[in-house]
Amino acid sequence: MIALVALWLAGVLLAAKIAGDIAVRLRQPPVLGELLAGVIIGNLPFIPAPPQSLTLLAELGVLLLLFEVGLSSTVAEMMRVGATALLVATLGVVAPFALGYGASAALLPALTPLHHAFVGATLTATSVGITARVLHDLGVSRTPTARIILGAAVIDDILGLTVLASIVALVESSNGGEPAGYGGIAIICAKAALFLIGALAVGTAIAPHLMRGAARLKSSSVLLAVGLSFCFFLAWGANAVGLAPIVGAYAAGLLLEKPHASAFIARGEKPLDDLIAPIVSFLVPIFFVTMGMHVSLRSLTDPNVVALAVVLTAVGVVGKLVCGLVAGGRATDRLAVGIGMMPRGEVGLIFANVGLGLTVGGVPLVSESTYSAIVIVVIVTTFATPPLLKKRFSPRNA
Amino acid sequence: MIALVALWLAGVLLAAKIAGDIAVRLRQPPVLGELLAGVIIGNLPFIPAPPQSLTLLAELGVLLLLFEVGLSSTVAEMMRVGATALLVATLGVVAPFALGYGASAALLPALTPLHHAFVGATLTATSVGITARVLHDLGVSRTPTARIILGAAVIDDILGLTVLASIVALVESSNGGEPAGYGGIAIICAKAALFLIGALAVGTAIAPHLMRGAARLKSSSVLLAVGLSFCFFLAWGANAVGLAPIVGAYAAGLLLEKPHASAFIARGEKPLDDLIAPIVSFLVPIFFVTMGMHVSLRSLTDPNVVALAVVLTAVGVVGKLVCGLVAGGRATDRLAVGIGMMPRGEVGLIFANVGLGLTVGGVPLVSESTYSAIVIVVIVTTFATPPLLKKRFSPRNA
Repeated sequence: MIALVALWLAGVLLAAKIAGDIAVRLRQPPVLGELLAGVIIGNLPFIPAPPQSLTLLAELGVLLLLFEVGLSSTVAEMMRVGATALLVATLGVVAPFALGYGASAALLPALTPLHHAFVGATLTATSVGITARVLHDLGVSRTPTARIILGAAVIDDILGLTVLASIVALVESSNGGEPAGYGGIAIICAKAALFLIGALAVGTAIAPHLMRGAARLKSSSVLLAVGLSFCFFLAWGANAVGLAPIVGAYAAGLLLEKPHASAFIARGEKPLDDLIAPIVSFLVPIFFVTMGMHVSLRSLTDPNVVALAVVLTAVGVVGKLVCGLVAGGRATDRLAVGIGMMPRGEVGLIFANVGLGLTVGGVPLVSESTYSAIVIVVIVTTFATPPLLKKRFSPRNA
Repeated sequence: MIALVALWLAGVLLAAKIAGDIAVRLRQPPVLGELLAGVIIGNLPFIPAPPQSLTLLAELGVLLLLFEVGLSSTVAEMMRVGATALLVATLGVVAPFALGYGASAALLPALTPLHHAFVGATLTATSVGITARVLHDLGVSRTPTARIILGAAVIDDILGLTVLASIVALVESSNGGEPAGYGGIAIICAKAALFLIGALAVGTAIAPHLMRGAARLKSSSVLLAVGLSFCFFLAWGANAVGLAPIVGAYAAGLLLEKPHASAFIARGEKPLDDLIAPIVSFLVPIFFVTMGMHVSLRSLTDPNVVALAVVLTAVGVVGKLVCGLVAGGRATDRLAVGIGMMPRGEVGLIFANVGLGLTVGGVPLVSESTYSAIVIVVIVTTFATPPLLKKRFSPRNA
């Protein structure tokens, strides 16, 4: 088992760096090369499906990437952009949801409102991994624009997951399950809001004491172990209240501020971000390569799929570009915010997968062709974002 | 899935550091605390079995630990102790095998020679992870004594796996499978020897060119990715020829010598051992905690098991202490070599597991009680080694 995983890791890491090299030579971000390397590997007929453990390592990678992104910011800094991020995120969920609902109703009139709502929901959640990686590679993670994008992307993950959970509750009650009603939906929303506010409030109060206490432990590499534990624990907590684990990992990163670790630095341990960086470098390319591997090039050959995909992609792009317009502040680049919110990734695919398994009145919530169209939306928005974002942040536009 | 793994990781990392702290305060090596933390976690009735992914992360951890140990040495340095290590390893396999065979023949006279041979085989392979970790924690990895221990431990892994593969071939032919005979055994041995000699010879020739070529790749963190790929590829290769993956990881570490990476250092990347260290710090405690979790305290209550265990443990300890005596060289501590070779770990348990699934003349090759006795041998030799090794390497004995 470990041997097979080792062979995959060797191949994926090497492919990621070679493809990243080609991307850089073509003045594109390395992550684009990694995604395309995944598309090629995933569509070669003689390559078997990767072991499940590779997916786990990829998911650990994106958790730690968001943790690292969180570490480069503080709760106070996030609060400063918080109102703007909340506004951007809300419009970034409402606009694609409404446009997606309308597009589905226009193109697939035979389906029910729940079907249309589900298509709208799959278009809501921003794939913050792509944007975080590109901003990190460009060295602009700490600009106000970047903070608004990252904050809004995390918030719209929360809103998107809440919308999804609500629709699933409605679908289940429409199929004769327990009636969900507005009470059930309110509980889902309340849990998500409580977790985030609770984690940030309680975390801000206890993180310094936690780190000071941990610094009394006489063993090696305590800072890394305690920091990772904190990240993993909040990731689990986020999932337990129905949010994506990455939301918890990001919150953990925000909470662990540099001064809290001073006792560790004094005894000779390296700063947490220095320790996390090689782990992220190891695991994150696995995430992007495996994300590319999920793309089936065959779905691109069906004209009906392509038509639906073109409309949904347009809707998805416009819905997110619009939300950048409400980003205020003199130092904020509104177009960059909109572009940064564009990519849909694993969350969109996870939503679509949930839809494949549910039916309303006997009709699948997401048909095979709708699924393929959603995959194309994910491909286009994901692949277009890195070069656009790079161009927007290049010195000429600064 | 990822959420459950995250919760386990948070708990295991925290438990490892707290237990490591207690061990250090009691003047014991941290790894002993980690093993005992695992024993406690694994025997608490209300804790469910860990997800399989945790085992994968643990195995990745021990791979990277051996890679790191290999990085701290070179092929040339190993060759200097090679003859001694080979001698120590050979006696370290022959002595426990012969003594284990004798003990089994005396205590379990109803069984066949193949049964006795199998018990002997389970006592052969040194668990190099424990010794490597303790030597690393003590900061003596680069002493001649440490090199002999590590070289011999890797070689006796090879010899032990060869013995196991040979016995399994004989068992299968005794059960009417394809006749294995001495030809089949010779092939197993030849493959193992060829892999190691081939990897070191070819690797020494191509590693500098490989690294110089890789240094032309324009992407970030190329050194880490290429180094890990090399490690994982040789780990897979070792497994493909029937050796333990850790043998390949160790060889990869030996082959990647500091000067080969100079082009990376020149462009601002950190040295490979600095990059590997945090990944090892993250994953290795998971290995030791999960190893402790495999220990069932209930097996210690059966007097027959305890009697067999006492004899096999004595045999296992004496068999390895003896092999230290042939370690020559003025700078070599023969007793330390013997102690360093003592621990049996995952390899012994893997052997025992293989035996549980095979029968000779309808009788299981390893009965439930023999299995429990082998588990006790693993516990005692593993737990005794860190404090003994620490004591032996403490300044008074230097």
